[in-house]
Amino acid sequence: MDNRKQAQTETLAHGDYETGLTETDRLDLRVWLRLLTCSNLIERSIRQTMREQFGTTLPRFDILSQLDRTPDGLTMGDLSRRLMVSNGNVTGLVDRLVGEGLVLREPSPHDRRAQLVRLTKPGKQAFADMVPAHAALVKAHFSGVKREQLTALHDMLGQLKDSLNDSNNGADSA
Amino acid sequence: MDNRKQAQTETLAHGDYETGLTETDRLDLRVWLRLLTCSNLIERSIRQTMREQFGTTLPRFDILSQLDRTPDGLTMGDLSRRLMVSNGNVTGLVDRLVGEGLVLREPSPHDRRAQLVRLTKPGKQAFADMVPAHAALVKAHFSGVKREQLTALHDMLGQLKDSLNDSNNGADSA
Repeated sequence: MDNRKQAQTETLAHGDYETGLTETDRLDLRVWLRLLTCSNLIERSIRQTMREQFGTTLPRFDILSQLDRTPDGLTMGDLSRRLMVSNGNVTGLVDRLVGEGLVLREPSPHDRRAQLVRLTKPGKQAFADMVPAHAALVKAHFSGVKREQLTALHDMLGQLKDSLNDSNNGADSA
Repeated sequence: MDNRKQAQTETLAHGDYETGLTETDRLDLRVWLRLLTCSNLIERSIRQTMREQFGTTLPRFDILSQLDRTPDGLTMGDLSRRLMVSNGNVTGLVDRLVGEGLVLREPSPHDRRAQLVRLTKPGKQAFADMVPAHAALVKAHFSGVKREQLTALHDMLGQLKDSLNDSNNGADSA
């Protein structure tokens, strides 16, 4: 029984995308699976808290967050790019937020054919209510990493992101 | 027209989870959104290539990959933990792989109540056929980052992962 409990603990601690990799596996693959593991661990935890504490999904929170940063509003295209999901996915979520009075659509002052999406006053308030819990959660997840390490991680991920965007743009224009 | 094109390019390059963040936003939030952006960019690209070149989804590839690393087989619980998804999600995917003859289920030699999942010979071959394309893709995504930087990134993400697992285990036992 103790053995089984220990095995469970080990599986809990070690069971993720990296499990079973060996030293002979490529460094790039190991970095990728570790990146994916960290990202999934944090996302899963934030998703769960948002659901339990606010009865909301993470994509809804992400939409409110993007709109909060852009008081003048965003086109649906901008919004879907920033959330890195398809236009179709965002449309349904925005429709529901409009229905709840948290978000509104209006014609762009610069281009009458384009519609802008922005927060209503209740939407701004709903988002403000969630921010402290979200911030505390993110902070807790990174609390085990020293600040200078966090700065270094930020820089390295910045290099990686630039390199990813370069290769994506290359692929687009090819 | 040129302006619009330039605006599109800028949006393409800059439109992601980090867009609109300011220097006053917390470092931990900025690291988290950058981590999520990198993870999504790479995952989306791998997902697309797996679909286009092999007509397979990324979760299917991930299952084959985990089973390939464990010739003796895995329980459904192990498999879902390693893929960081729910048991229910994995069950449907494994059912289909069993139906296609790529995977089989058999009783565990150690515990007759437990079922083990492992690759069949055609499953091993199907996975082997996909590995070079997957490896080349991962390599391409990290090619813009120097090897010593990649090692440092691996170490830092390791610290982050340990810290995440510590806080998760803490939450479990609390």
